[in-house]
Amino acid sequence: MQQKLILVTNDDGIFAPGLKALVETARKYGEVVVVAPNSPQSGMGHAITMNLPLRLHKIDMFPDIESYECSGTPVDCVKLAKNVLLRERQIDLCLSGINHGSNASINIIYSGTMSAAMEASLEGIPSIGFSLLDYSFDADFWQAEPFVDHLVQSVLEQGLHGCRLLNVNIPKLPRKEIRGIKICRQAEGNWVEEFKEGKDPRNQTYYWLTGEFRLDDPGTDTDLWALENGYISVVPSGHDLTVHPALAQNDHLQITQHEPIGNETSL
Amino acid sequence: MQQKLILVTNDDGIFAPGLKALVETARKYGEVVVVAPNSPQSGMGHAITMNLPLRLHKIDMFPDIESYECSGTPVDCVKLAKNVLLRERQIDLCLSGINHGSNASINIIYSGTMSAAMEASLEGIPSIGFSLLDYSFDADFWQAEPFVDHLVQSVLEQGLHGCRLLNVNIPKLPRKEIRGIKICRQAEGNWVEEFKEGKDPRNQTYYWLTGEFRLDDPGTDTDLWALENGYISVVPSGHDLTVHPALAQNDHLQITQHEPIGNETSL
Repeated sequence: MQQKLILVTNDDGIFAPGLKALVETARKYGEVVVVAPNSPQSGMGHAITMNLPLRLHKIDMFPDIESYECSGTPVDCVKLAKNVLLRERQIDLCLSGINHGSNASINIIYSGTMSAAMEASLEGIPSIGFSLLDYSFDADFWQAEPFVDHLVQSVLEQGLHGCRLLNVNIPKLPRKEIRGIKICRQAEGNWVEEFKEGKDPRNQTYYWLTGEFRLDDPGTDTDLWALENGYISVVPSGHDLTVHPALAQNDHLQITQHEPIGNETSL
Repeated sequence: MQQKLILVTNDDGIFAPGLKALVETARKYGEVVVVAPNSPQSGMGHAITMNLPLRLHKIDMFPDIESYECSGTPVDCVKLAKNVLLRERQIDLCLSGINHGSNASINIIYSGTMSAAMEASLEGIPSIGFSLLDYSFDADFWQAEPFVDHLVQSVLEQGLHGCRLLNVNIPKLPRKEIRGIKICRQAEGNWVEEFKEGKDPRNQTYYWLTGEFRLDDPGTDTDLWALENGYISVVPSGHDLTVHPALAQNDHLQITQHEPIGNETSL
């Protein structure tokens, strides 16, 4: 196979073990460039930095791999890689992760990992965000390595069809118990939030986010179903938030002709 | 009409004139509670604050309206409103904005305004995010007031059908030139990014995000078409990022049976 250029990023920061695992797989398939946040950025969603300048420092992180730490968000990392560091070159694939923790179901919305991958897909780059359902720092990314390898190789060699972004989640299982890889839709679910209320050392009230995930989808074709049944879930994802069936159902909102509503004298 | 409870938030911060405009409309229709960031949060996307405590302060901002400033992101504001301040009550409608600047097309992904509204919709609350295509602080929100009023009233009285979230964008036009309100889909487009490179006072390089929007969609049923033709655009929106047609097009990624890939000895 021809030498490919692969951008690797994440949201847990450049020192996260999940990033290292992804770099090890990516390097088998081409030239790897790493641009990752210099601090953990979990839950940053699709945030971008508009009101502050960004810093980018080359660091010696992985042997023989060009690596940069960035002061911004995961999306900033991808923008800087595409538009500054690699602006003269074609990036063949963007890999984001491996995230320490799930980005299945609605978590894709909050995820810096998935937002970085989505940003690359908006730039026309095929992208995969990987997450392992284990929040611990020393999670064992090695168990799923052959499956991650399969997905990277398949996308590089055969491409993605009808989409440019995959949301891949990996169950926390020993390799032998992972039953395979399933294409799925995003499950419907949300977070039932609570806030831990407390007093700081100056006796001021604070609120700290906590909560638990609530599945709200009986389907057996979802990412959460796949994960609960021992499969790696792959959701072909995009960025169109339109609810197309609702386009024809809300005529009461429309004003298609000039009506008195716009008349100054009626107010 | 029965007294309704309306949550109002934004991403430009509690002192933004766009918030004041929305509060003025909302107060005609019920009891209004304002929870907004204590500083501008544009471009925060769906970011949430997980690693820091949040602060919430009651302030005397609008006559006879309960108002709070929050140290977090727009999404944090909605979570705190729903789960702390108003946890015993039913919120009938969430309004976010009016944003100073467009959130049409792909901008919905980066927008704190729309992410706040989306968060409320995830909680089951009908929600509308409003944006005016004028970035200036002293933008004239009064021109579109009857149309904003129409949308708020229509959703309160007749509900939303097939969705719980509207992305509303308003052209920068005098009232008489606004041609009406159109239901649209999200236009395909993206940002062609550049970074302004400079040196700080300590001679360190920085990069500052800039760029211009590129429309990549010839449709006449899009939000950008509507805005360019003098209409207010309304996109029924959701949170399912699955590209459904792609589900059947990527079988090469799947591993449905146990194959040697999971075999320890093959590595």
